[in-house]
Amino acid sequence: MDFRRVSSILSFLLLCLSGTLLLPLAVSYAYGEPEAFAFLASFLLCGVIGGAGFLLFRTGRQEISHREGFAVVGLGWVVVCLLGAVPYLLAGTFPNFLDAFFESSSGFTTTGATVLDDIEALPKGVLFWRSLTHWLGGMGIIVFSMAILPMLGVGGMQLYRAEVPGPIPDRLKPRIRETAKTLWIVYLLISVVETLLLLVGGMDLFDSVCHTFGTMATGGFSTRNASIGAYHSAYFDWVITAFMLIAGANFALHYLFLVKGRSRRYLQDPEFRFYLFTILGLTLAVTVLLRVATYSSWTVSVRHAAFQVVSILTTTGYTTADYELWPRAAQFILLALMFFGGCAGSTGGSIKCIRILLLMKHAYRDIYRLIHPQAISPVKLGEKSVSTDVMDSVTAYVLLFMGIFLAATFLLSLLGLDLLSALSAAAACLGNVGPGLGAVGPTHTFAAIAPAAKGILIACMLLGRLEIFALLLLFVPEFWRR
Amino acid sequence: MDFRRVSSILSFLLLCLSGTLLLPLAVSYAYGEPEAFAFLASFLLCGVIGGAGFLLFRTGRQEISHREGFAVVGLGWVVVCLLGAVPYLLAGTFPNFLDAFFESSSGFTTTGATVLDDIEALPKGVLFWRSLTHWLGGMGIIVFSMAILPMLGVGGMQLYRAEVPGPIPDRLKPRIRETAKTLWIVYLLISVVETLLLLVGGMDLFDSVCHTFGTMATGGFSTRNASIGAYHSAYFDWVITAFMLIAGANFALHYLFLVKGRSRRYLQDPEFRFYLFTILGLTLAVTVLLRVATYSSWTVSVRHAAFQVVSILTTTGYTTADYELWPRAAQFILLALMFFGGCAGSTGGSIKCIRILLLMKHAYRDIYRLIHPQAISPVKLGEKSVSTDVMDSVTAYVLLFMGIFLAATFLLSLLGLDLLSALSAAAACLGNVGPGLGAVGPTHTFAAIAPAAKGILIACMLLGRLEIFALLLLFVPEFWRR
Repeated sequence: MDFRRVSSILSFLLLCLSGTLLLPLAVSYAYGEPEAFAFLASFLLCGVIGGAGFLLFRTGRQEISHREGFAVVGLGWVVVCLLGAVPYLLAGTFPNFLDAFFESSSGFTTTGATVLDDIEALPKGVLFWRSLTHWLGGMGIIVFSMAILPMLGVGGMQLYRAEVPGPIPDRLKPRIRETAKTLWIVYLLISVVETLLLLVGGMDLFDSVCHTFGTMATGGFSTRNASIGAYHSAYFDWVITAFMLIAGANFALHYLFLVKGRSRRYLQDPEFRFYLFTILGLTLAVTVLLRVATYSSWTVSVRHAAFQVVSILTTTGYTTADYELWPRAAQFILLALMFFGGCAGSTGGSIKCIRILLLMKHAYRDIYRLIHPQAISPVKLGEKSVSTDVMDSVTAYVLLFMGIFLAATFLLSLLGLDLLSALSAAAACLGNVGPGLGAVGPTHTFAAIAPAAKGILIACMLLGRLEIFALLLLFVPEFWRR
Repeated sequence: MDFRRVSSILSFLLLCLSGTLLLPLAVSYAYGEPEAFAFLASFLLCGVIGGAGFLLFRTGRQEISHREGFAVVGLGWVVVCLLGAVPYLLAGTFPNFLDAFFESSSGFTTTGATVLDDIEALPKGVLFWRSLTHWLGGMGIIVFSMAILPMLGVGGMQLYRAEVPGPIPDRLKPRIRETAKTLWIVYLLISVVETLLLLVGGMDLFDSVCHTFGTMATGGFSTRNASIGAYHSAYFDWVITAFMLIAGANFALHYLFLVKGRSRRYLQDPEFRFYLFTILGLTLAVTVLLRVATYSSWTVSVRHAAFQVVSILTTTGYTTADYELWPRAAQFILLALMFFGGCAGSTGGSIKCIRILLLMKHAYRDIYRLIHPQAISPVKLGEKSVSTDVMDSVTAYVLLFMGIFLAATFLLSLLGLDLLSALSAAAACLGNVGPGLGAVGPTHTFAAIAPAAKGILIACMLLGRLEIFALLLLFVPEFWRR
């Protein structure tokens, strides 16, 4: 482990963070808010730390090893979440560091859980920073899942190395830089389109940009207390539903479509098909439930059903309605969807469609074998057989995910949350979804829960965002040796 | 598939059932209850159907194939649960067949969930029949898991074929009959000891026998509304805790100890060690929680904690306290334990310790591999490597179990149960535990839930008891061909 090189890259990361702080500074300044000072000070702080580190740890080496890559990713995310909390503190948004760290982590991990009770009372600069952290986190996660995770063999993305030619690099250097650039252009392009569509519908520029940030990163921070429900607009609901769906799909597919013009790739991809049909099927089910029990019109039912199913499945967490008033079966679907997540290579969190699909195929294969003991039947994805190694890593990931989920739920219940709130809070934070049920439901926030519980949930958000392994590795002494 | 042979064995099973009905008949007669008539009529009904079938389908063939074995087990359990409901109907215990079928299924599957609100108002004959169905179900499941499941390769017991010499047969015929006899003698012996210990403590003979039936089968039907809590006796609590622990262990180990004198086998067995240490660890955790929040004495805390942890983990379902008044973290431990179950080859239900242990080892192995990619590290159980086939079947089983659990929870929530009640009812019935939380908690019964929900839970009980595959196979058309 070349600590010098790792520190050098982390310092560079802080310089980048410092640069991004100029944006909320500009917004705050333009609106004439006194909080502009908070962003200026944060900009300087990050700049000085990052600059000093960059000069101090400068090294001629360019390439980094796999281990160093993991160290950068794991530590980088934590450091950015910590320093991202500084503007909140300086602007006086939160009375203590823990809450600021929670909000910052929730932003950068694209979770969208908030400890703010009255969002609309915040200055524009702070609102902009909240949403921007989502968008930056989303950029980070795309590169992480496309370039770093395949090496780890746990992201599900290794399946794509052979299947999807193009933006998936086999080695970290030097293609990671190209890949990152290409994907970020795609990400930016789709973001611009969404912003324009929201503007066309009459949303003001500020809200359009902020909600685009939250959508594209499958984050969920809004500028309104009632989230997207504040607009009572079918147009906004459907636009955001569509872009949440896009953000939850594999960005390699968007790249192939937008850059190479290959639109057929979408439906050729087994994961995307599974993702789409799950959404369509469950939207239909929730629509029927809502039409029967909650709303008197089919169009209203399908609009809210589609929005909420896509929002929770992609782990965005925007809401248009208080789904705790919906039939319990619909609530249960939403709770179960927290474990789904978008596709691999998307900004979505949680277990991810590819793993769920592979597990289902695995279970089906075993039942088939029971009836035909002689049959040789590997698990297949599209045309390709899935290797035992990949299948093992999928199983291990899901087991670890569920293990951490149970441990977190236990700790939260120990801290006084009722079981449903504890379950859904753990699922919502580990899956980077945002709102849960009960005390952390869509009409509540995470503000009222115990400080220790907030700490646990911050750990969950980071674990979930870094696909568990990348963060856990940092705690393995052997990882740091040699 | 030799339908004649299958029908012949099923008929024989009914003749056995008819014979066992003489016991509640005798009890009812001895207490001078008019319900004796109900048992006499049921005895005759089962006897006539069974006898006629036995004569009609008589066949010279002795051996049966694997397929026929599965057909007998799957159909046998359903037929016995159906006809076991007849005495309840004739005795007027329930106003409709569904409730009687629920109680009968809950008995024979050793679940212990009840639709009776006032148990103490029942005639002795009916109480005895309820408890007896547990004990008979327990006998059935021991043979099923020792002799039938290993052939299916899903019971976890195939691991023991090589490890534990003695009572585990490799083929169904002719050793199944010997095996069954040996195991039943062990089962009877331990039952007699428990009954004697309860008698010594001052419980009357009737209650002692009934509670022994419920304990040994990890069932949970009691003769008291407040379950074991009705006695307020530390002695009874500890005796029953000990025997639930025994009933949740592998009966092959008890055989080796009682018949062959090999007491060391217990701690040599990885599953038993895991089972014991899980119980000790969680009992300690719950004891501390109870001492801090609920009871003022350590001895009372440890007594209730040990009883309830063992009761839920072994899927018995007896209660000594209203655990819904306990701290939420303790409730969460109990909820999570519903998915554990006892050891393979015990009368316990649910996922079973061996599978949980293998899954944990699997997850650990994969994390280890991540740090040492070159290491060749198969999952090991004791000294032996676990084959991929076994590991696959374990994974598939757990996936199916969780899939059915989620589907059942969804259907129950659709029928109006709140999420916590739906979750815990599905877990409690699929895992053959008995009581859940909320509307189906320890101070409530399943009486108030919708008829359709009762139907779903009956299906769950049977699926759980027959390790899913053995029941699902019956619905695969290919299974019946040739």
